[in-house]
Amino acid sequence: MAMEATTTLPFLLFLFLGLLLILFTSSRYPSLNTHLKFIRIQAKEPSPTSHLDHLTEIPQHPLDPLTLQEITKVQTILSSYSPFTSSFPTIHTVCLHEPDKSLVWNWNKGDPLPPRQAFVIAYLDGKSNVLVVDIGSSQVVSHVLNPYSGYPILIPEDMESAIKIPFRDARFNKSIMDRGVNLSDVICGPLAAGWYGPNEEGRRLVKVECFSHQGTVNFYMRPIEGLIVMVDVDKKEVVHFTDYGHGIPIAESTNTDYRYSAVQNKPLNMNPINPISMEQPKGPSFKVDGHMVKWANWEFHLKPHPRAGVVISQAMVRDSESGKLRRVMYRGFPSELFVPYMDPSDAWYFKTYMDAGEYGMGLSALPLVPLNDCPRNAYYMDAVFGASDGKPYVRSNMICIFERYAGDIAWRHSESSFSNMEVREARAKITLVVRMAASVGNYDYIIDWEFQMDGLIRVKVILSGMLMVKGTPYQTLDQAPDGQNMSGTLVSENLIGVVHDHFIAFHLDMDIDGSDNSFVNVHLKKQETSPGESPRKSYLKVERQVAKTEKDAQIKFKLYDPSEYHVVNPNKKSRVGNPVGYKVVPGGNAASLLDLHDPPQIRGAFTNNQIWVTPYNRSEEWAGGLLVFQGKGEDTLAVWSERDRPIENKDIVLWYTLGFHHIPCQEDFPIMPSVSSSFDLKPVNFFESNPILRVAPNVQEDLPVCRAATSA
Amino acid sequence: MAMEATTTLPFLLFLFLGLLLILFTSSRYPSLNTHLKFIRIQAKEPSPTSHLDHLTEIPQHPLDPLTLQEITKVQTILSSYSPFTSSFPTIHTVCLHEPDKSLVWNWNKGDPLPPRQAFVIAYLDGKSNVLVVDIGSSQVVSHVLNPYSGYPILIPEDMESAIKIPFRDARFNKSIMDRGVNLSDVICGPLAAGWYGPNEEGRRLVKVECFSHQGTVNFYMRPIEGLIVMVDVDKKEVVHFTDYGHGIPIAESTNTDYRYSAVQNKPLNMNPINPISMEQPKGPSFKVDGHMVKWANWEFHLKPHPRAGVVISQAMVRDSESGKLRRVMYRGFPSELFVPYMDPSDAWYFKTYMDAGEYGMGLSALPLVPLNDCPRNAYYMDAVFGASDGKPYVRSNMICIFERYAGDIAWRHSESSFSNMEVREARAKITLVVRMAASVGNYDYIIDWEFQMDGLIRVKVILSGMLMVKGTPYQTLDQAPDGQNMSGTLVSENLIGVVHDHFIAFHLDMDIDGSDNSFVNVHLKKQETSPGESPRKSYLKVERQVAKTEKDAQIKFKLYDPSEYHVVNPNKKSRVGNPVGYKVVPGGNAASLLDLHDPPQIRGAFTNNQIWVTPYNRSEEWAGGLLVFQGKGEDTLAVWSERDRPIENKDIVLWYTLGFHHIPCQEDFPIMPSVSSSFDLKPVNFFESNPILRVAPNVQEDLPVCRAATSA
Repeated sequence: MAMEATTTLPFLLFLFLGLLLILFTSSRYPSLNTHLKFIRIQAKEPSPTSHLDHLTEIPQHPLDPLTLQEITKVQTILSSYSPFTSSFPTIHTVCLHEPDKSLVWNWNKGDPLPPRQAFVIAYLDGKSNVLVVDIGSSQVVSHVLNPYSGYPILIPEDMESAIKIPFRDARFNKSIMDRGVNLSDVICGPLAAGWYGPNEEGRRLVKVECFSHQGTVNFYMRPIEGLIVMVDVDKKEVVHFTDYGHGIPIAESTNTDYRYSAVQNKPLNMNPINPISMEQPKGPSFKVDGHMVKWANWEFHLKPHPRAGVVISQAMVRDSESGKLRRVMYRGFPSELFVPYMDPSDAWYFKTYMDAGEYGMGLSALPLVPLNDCPRNAYYMDAVFGASDGKPYVRSNMICIFERYAGDIAWRHSESSFSNMEVREARAKITLVVRMAASVGNYDYIIDWEFQMDGLIRVKVILSGMLMVKGTPYQTLDQAPDGQNMSGTLVSENLIGVVHDHFIAFHLDMDIDGSDNSFVNVHLKKQETSPGESPRKSYLKVERQVAKTEKDAQIKFKLYDPSEYHVVNPNKKSRVGNPVGYKVVPGGNAASLLDLHDPPQIRGAFTNNQIWVTPYNRSEEWAGGLLVFQGKGEDTLAVWSERDRPIENKDIVLWYTLGFHHIPCQEDFPIMPSVSSSFDLKPVNFFESNPILRVAPNVQEDLPVCRAATSA
Repeated sequence: MAMEATTTLPFLLFLFLGLLLILFTSSRYPSLNTHLKFIRIQAKEPSPTSHLDHLTEIPQHPLDPLTLQEITKVQTILSSYSPFTSSFPTIHTVCLHEPDKSLVWNWNKGDPLPPRQAFVIAYLDGKSNVLVVDIGSSQVVSHVLNPYSGYPILIPEDMESAIKIPFRDARFNKSIMDRGVNLSDVICGPLAAGWYGPNEEGRRLVKVECFSHQGTVNFYMRPIEGLIVMVDVDKKEVVHFTDYGHGIPIAESTNTDYRYSAVQNKPLNMNPINPISMEQPKGPSFKVDGHMVKWANWEFHLKPHPRAGVVISQAMVRDSESGKLRRVMYRGFPSELFVPYMDPSDAWYFKTYMDAGEYGMGLSALPLVPLNDCPRNAYYMDAVFGASDGKPYVRSNMICIFERYAGDIAWRHSESSFSNMEVREARAKITLVVRMAASVGNYDYIIDWEFQMDGLIRVKVILSGMLMVKGTPYQTLDQAPDGQNMSGTLVSENLIGVVHDHFIAFHLDMDIDGSDNSFVNVHLKKQETSPGESPRKSYLKVERQVAKTEKDAQIKFKLYDPSEYHVVNPNKKSRVGNPVGYKVVPGGNAASLLDLHDPPQIRGAFTNNQIWVTPYNRSEEWAGGLLVFQGKGEDTLAVWSERDRPIENKDIVLWYTLGFHHIPCQEDFPIMPSVSSSFDLKPVNFFESNPILRVAPNVQEDLPVCRAATSA
């Protein structure tokens, strides 16, 4: 049986996390083009500009990600770097070490690029090596050992060995067989262990949980409940074996598959929908030049990132009056996620994921599905990442860019009269969307950056994919002695969708018309009138409070104590004297209610507030810390902010955390209809007046002439 | 000069509120068709189904609005109704008196319609007459006098006389001339007086404020500040004249006009945008039969309403498993608006509007602008309303219905592998939108009802139009001794955008699989673990609290004390035993902070909570009361709810209030880029599983073949 298991393992592994592609492409260069072509064909649709040839690509901009050739060079440099000559480390991170901010802002197209450097996290002999490699001079210019308690992001080999190890354990195999499950039907997942004190620290631990994929691709809905094997991925040994799952059946595979090929034969029970498509017969209006995107009044740099997924840099908007490009944001990206599940039991307590730092949002992003993940006419951007052997590989179609017209209204007004002064003015809203989608195990995170012509940037997080479900003996609620005490909702027979939260912290380095900005709490306060002052008893008064230090900017939202939150340039005033600025406009949100001293909350402490503001510090990028895996939370946004540094009229970074409480429901089974929330970055006295006042209305004459394809 | 003024008045009037059309069409029937044709031509685009011929239209459904012929009949009946024979009242409201709910649910297509009745509010000799007229029997079946303290909605004649009266007052004319303004450039507005105690009650009062339209159509940006004339619209006399505005200049007209014809010559300063359009070469997928709309798995009744604007009735969704139509909502509509401005000074304190009950959202809705207010392929629905003389008129293209594909994702998941088990599944999201846009004086309210195939209904309110601005002597902030003490933002020279709130209360009569429902507060509570129970210190626990009476369901949102709010059918369980239901999912929101005893807050008391639940009571439709104009707030949602009636397992109505704080900024000048917020009604254990699991993916072959029109 053990033999049987091991033979099936590579296959099972590849099924589980999106990593074969990595080993595959990074190990065989010739296949690279073939692979790219394959994706090209898959995409079917023309792209507005042709893709780069990654084999010959050279960087065009100081912030361009490392090219295939540069990553190869870095690998060569590290191979001959003395500490690594005896044995080469595993590379957990390799990406651009960005030049200093001032160099980047001062760089102009045509200037020589600042020195190209790589940021590398390499793991060797139980130690995390954080290095900066200068590519031009082939020098390691910085090398720090174990700067923090945690470990680097998990690499494919870690996960592969982690899920292999249990199959060498007789107890594990017996547990599987006792349940009547074929080992060949078992798929295991390498779950991040979180950090829970002395028993589980000082070594790299992964908790392995398994599923049966018999009869379905949706193995997530068939957990082998209660069987958790803790393994040391360095020593490659089982540290702790537990099986709390006796008597808990494995849920049936019926109705769990979600592939169209598997469900299309059942009736849909709705009226058919005619094809509908966003059509641009003259093509999209945006231009992509390498990693620079230009559209309408916007220009920004866009790149994939192994950890953040997508990074938007140097977002600038053209002034509607002067026509000058003006700085809005130096850098924006999802910094960390925190996903605590609400079940303290032995098999579940540790499920408190930090997906960016433990698995990588970019590394988990697979090629987008044309026409379904992104509309026709979308432009697809590939990522070039480094594998754990230091070699580069290409993740195709990882980002898409498209123009959106959703039938919305940018502004309107009607005045009524039949006279020559009748007014019926309305303008259609057209926007530009940048999208990526990460499949971190069961969950899918879609992250949109939407740019509007009125200067607004909407950041939207969309959740889909599969629930993390818990097996239960109960088929229906009446069998449950106390339904209230289940850790979630019975979403199907023998399956509980466990309650959980999602938090995504965004790093928003605002540079409104320059680097030195201030954070202003524009507070709305109830003001009672004095006797005789007015027939009114009360009204709202605006009080502007400029944050002096970080603690002034630790913000918890209160519906009954509202404020607007402005980032302004105190050194630049509008024509009538208002400081120019942007405000962050929250949409729906949720806060973490966990105990502040709870280990997961200490690591996810960036959720202690919805807004934070820190002085710019290039080392403070990751809200949960640089080394998140099993980290103890000594390097988080909350720790940095506690230093209470001055932030008035300084180069500041705004941090916004978007949250969701998720109480699952049956509609989330077997795959979740997408749920979303967003926040906006909105100009406030940044423009002298409505910047889209002069946008032209849609006219019939401009609309395309279309016919159904099938009538071709 | 007085002569000069009066001659210009009809013209000025027509400019100010959208009412000429009314007088126009209602006074000349022959022009009706011409008028309709005119609008048809204006629309340019074909509609998926042909419009009704209003002259011959007969009702098809118990909830269909009164037809042109029916309104005419009602007018005839009232003319011979004894109390009105001596003198005919002014008709402030005439619309369908809906049949009892049970009759409507039990009615099937083909059945005879229940008796057609009209609900009428008629004003005569200082008294409000509330009547129900049976059209078949030509009888007045109910007649109540002055049921409440307030007065009915303002009619065109009220506003016309209100804004004429000041011109007969020498002080008024002098004030205008002292400012060097030509009377012929003056446009006045009839502002609702609110209710501020004994001095301003017992008679119908309108406060007249004026503007200069010299050099611009955007007279709102040129207020004649401080000049407020309070008039008695019944006695047609000036009650109170005040001018606090001496020394406050009228802002320049420069840069205030927003019409494309007036601004297109200035440069736009952005890259051009190629045409983009939602194309459906096979046409839209929805069907409109009279007022019934059918699309995908949805069916609902849709009608215009003079006060609410749009009413959605009998919303039903087809079950994804059984294929049966299931009840979701009996009736949904915006019940009242509350818009308090935050300036207690003499010329501003009373600006606390309740737009639905004072002006009428439907009456203020003008024809939508094709291709800009709504996309190509939108279907436009007309309204038939009654004028103040009781005669009917047609408001064309008041509602639009369209299908939306915005490039969004309905659900997705990727599993990574190159094997035959590779999974890359994604589905595009297509929705159906119902839209209306009311121009209530300066402000535009766009209200969208968006239906999704996954059973979700999104209700979205979009704000645009013009700010209500206050004149100030200051051209720039440095001239202001204390900027903090201004009641808003200096948005342009001599203009303050005054801080204000918007609240829109929605009446949502949920009937989940039947009339008897319960409201459940699904509370997320922090639970500390007991020592040794778990390495975790805390987690979230779900507690379901069923509301027994109304006070249990008076909900204020708290970020740190969160709940889900479910309307469930306690008599119907899902396969695994969950009660079937829908939840209301808040998006961004704002609460009223005004003193609970402040007169405007007493009238707008429906904003004291974000959610209320009341037992169904056909007389409880308008959250601010039936007679809102100068009402004292004795007939509001807050008063009804205070009775604390049982609501468990009863026919209940959910009330949700969406709020906005608006601190104006320069970008809002001279016309506001749209701002929006929304809430969702989302199925929760209503379907046994994901209802869109089997929706087909988009494929290349279905996409239209388009070319640019100009290349035709």
